[in-house]
Amino acid sequence: MGGGAKRFFPRDSVEFGRVINFSDGLFAIAMTLLVVEVGVPKLLHENDVRELADDLADLIPNFVGFFLSFAVIGRYWVAHHQMFSLLRGVDTGLIVRNLVYLAFVAFLPFPTALLGDYFGNPLAVTVYAAVAAVVSGLEVVLLRHAYRAGLLRVRIGPDVLRWGTVASVSPVVLFALSIPVAYWNTTAAVAVWFLSVPFGIFMDRHRPEGAELLQG
Amino acid sequence: MGGGAKRFFPRDSVEFGRVINFSDGLFAIAMTLLVVEVGVPKLLHENDVRELADDLADLIPNFVGFFLSFAVIGRYWVAHHQMFSLLRGVDTGLIVRNLVYLAFVAFLPFPTALLGDYFGNPLAVTVYAAVAAVVSGLEVVLLRHAYRAGLLRVRIGPDVLRWGTVASVSPVVLFALSIPVAYWNTTAAVAVWFLSVPFGIFMDRHRPEGAELLQG
Amino acid sequence: MGGGAKRFFPRDSVEFGRVINFSDGLFAIAMTLLVVEVGVPKLLHENDVRELADDLADLIPNFVGFFLSFAVIGRYWVAHHQMFSLLRGVDTGLIVRNLVYLAFVAFLPFPTALLGDYFGNPLAVTVYAAVAAVVSGLEVVLLRHAYRAGLLRVRIGPDVLRWGTVASVSPVVLFALSIPVAYWNTTAAVAVWFLSVPFGIFMDRHRPEGAELLQG
Amino acid sequence: MGGGAKRFFPRDSVEFGRVINFSDGLFAIAMTLLVVEVGVPKLLHENDVRELADDLADLIPNFVGFFLSFAVIGRYWVAHHQMFSLLRGVDTGLIVRNLVYLAFVAFLPFPTALLGDYFGNPLAVTVYAAVAAVVSGLEVVLLRHAYRAGLLRVRIGPDVLRWGTVASVSPVVLFALSIPVAYWNTTAAVAVWFLSVPFGIFMDRHRPEGAELLQG
Repeated sequence: MGGGAKRFFPRDSVEFGRVINFSDGLFAIAMTLLVVEVGVPKLLHENDVRELADDLADLIPNFVGFFLSFAVIGRYWVAHHQMFSLLRGVDTGLIVRNLVYLAFVAFLPFPTALLGDYFGNPLAVTVYAAVAAVVSGLEVVLLRHAYRAGLLRVRIGPDVLRWGTVASVSPVVLFALSIPVAYWNTTAAVAVWFLSVPFGIFMDRHRPEGAELLQG
Repeated sequence: MGGGAKRFFPRDSVEFGRVINFSDGLFAIAMTLLVVEVGVPKLLHENDVRELADDLADLIPNFVGFFLSFAVIGRYWVAHHQMFSLLRGVDTGLIVRNLVYLAFVAFLPFPTALLGDYFGNPLAVTVYAAVAAVVSGLEVVLLRHAYRAGLLRVRIGPDVLRWGTVASVSPVVLFALSIPVAYWNTTAAVAVWFLSVPFGIFMDRHRPEGAELLQG
Repeated sequence: MGGGAKRFFPRDSVEFGRVINFSDGLFAIAMTLLVVEVGVPKLLHENDVRELADDLADLIPNFVGFFLSFAVIGRYWVAHHQMFSLLRGVDTGLIVRNLVYLAFVAFLPFPTALLGDYFGNPLAVTVYAAVAAVVSGLEVVLLRHAYRAGLLRVRIGPDVLRWGTVASVSPVVLFALSIPVAYWNTTAAVAVWFLSVPFGIFMDRHRPEGAELLQG
Repeated sequence: MGGGAKRFFPRDSVEFGRVINFSDGLFAIAMTLLVVEVGVPKLLHENDVRELADDLADLIPNFVGFFLSFAVIGRYWVAHHQMFSLLRGVDTGLIVRNLVYLAFVAFLPFPTALLGDYFGNPLAVTVYAAVAAVVSGLEVVLLRHAYRAGLLRVRIGPDVLRWGTVASVSPVVLFALSIPVAYWNTTAAVAVWFLSVPFGIFMDRHRPEGAELLQG
């Protein structure tokens, strides 16, 4: 089927449900596939506890990578869940933007595996931070399209939208800032990502009235 | 359970929902599995930025393949979403045709991986184009079955159906045309696939009245 | 949470929906994972059409295995879809039996990969036929439990149930019969599986009144 | 989007449905991925029945691991299904706890593969038991949060909650107890896990009034 005409599917339609079900399925798969990238070690002596312990210790970066990425993608899912709870429906523009967003979510297992295998390599940290920044940035694109196209079921003022945009853009900035840090120390770069927690608390204290609905 | 009797499941039934949920799950998995085919490079020096950069550069065709196929399958999903939004229900005939269609969707990660590894090989492009052409062709089969079996919830005239068929068949023609081109230049063959964008705009300008519902 | 007490969840409950969604997700994944088992060939000369053609020819049993198993699991999904359309709800007993049934569905990608790699090996055919026979047999277990526990939303007599059981058991018999045939000729064994098509037509012509609802 | 504010989504909302659909998708994928870890053997003589038989015999621990883990995760799914059937809605706190719980469910294919490859290694049994104990423990966390936050749609007294907690904690204790046993005999350790069956029957006989709703 062809191209451009816009259509609108309200919240209680089968079609709205499909967009959500499809997104949830993709999120669930991307989060579960992460474990496939953690390969089972090959032992010389199958029943040797010490050898298995050593091999599992070598996999610690992979385990950290799994739980880190599960947390990152899980946070994206929570944000997606929250944003779609504000919508009175979807249009073709949001469906297409959502697919672009999901493409980068589906791609995340690759930088996760890279980070797990080469945690000390600044370029691995860079690739991870860049892909995560793109996902966070596309979150803003989705929110602003929903606002402009009149898809929100709540009335929010421009100050609330600005506040919500800052809250969503902040991970982009943190991921970008972490890239030069990675070339000095990769662990410090990953630590920068966790600055989003105190920043989230700060944003929470400075939110304008009427912004409760944009909050998790 | 046995064979032939036809049954009808209306739009608001649990059974209609299952056909859609199952299709969405399969689409989501096929799109997410694409990333598994992109293997993580094996480095000699784990923390060597230059070596990782070189290895990632070698993977560029795989990244292109991932995003290209995500776009191709995503477009099929949008078309499936649109077509099913026209249905007042499904019958056994549509369920079976939908499964045949989904078999080729589920198969797409294989030609995608082939294209990623051997982008310069005309046969890899041929296999990809052939499978994609089959999926586009089956889209037409689904639409025409829905029309003939009276499953559409909108009244469309034969001119609208003809127009919709041309719009759906056009990717088949483009994929078929790209195959001989691939034996001259594989990049040119992939470029032919993108002709669907201006063709979609052309079709949009020449659509008959009453065809809005067949549009995205 | 503990053990034995039985609970009933009607058709319009969230819990009935979960059993169905979970089953559909598992079917969709099992059918899509089949393609992962088809490995991409490793070429010595990346752009050599003839070498790729030879390697793809070697993969023909894997392609046959993929589409065969997609058809087999797809047929199970259609049967599951039909059986659940007869239910007025599910109880704990059906949920547990459904999980056992799904365990063997989820296991099917293994015998499929085995069959794809060793199509000429009678034992590969035996393993495939045995697992498929178990799935078909468990279909009967689900149907009879639903009948005995009063979960059906249609009244069917014992002759209809007997007829439905025969229709469901027949693939078990065909798969079992194919095993000794495999030790003479594996292609003939696979051909036996396709006898289910004429048998389905035969069953269709001999179904008792009131059995329409057990039909696809 | 930012941090802390709590929101409530009632049982009939799209958002409640998403939490459930996402969980079901993740469970289904974790259970189906288990089979990917069972690799197809490489035969020297493709059609040699005896060689394939020997190789399949070597895979028996992997088959046991697949069905054991399918049963374990399936049991978790049944418990999740039961607990969510008690809820009148979800809040942000439950959504986050549910994601932590699902992270460990999604991780289970790794210890399963480890157990399949090194069934005789006490450390492989330890890792499996530890992860399974964490999942069982998080089940209790979910239940107690739902109770304290007033998310349950039934009124249960503190004795019923205590009883439900004991029933949920018991697998944690059994998994923990099995770890020292594994260093004496790994098969005995796995046997300890099956003690949950008679314990479940015991708990069933000693449940207080009003606890039927916490039962499966």
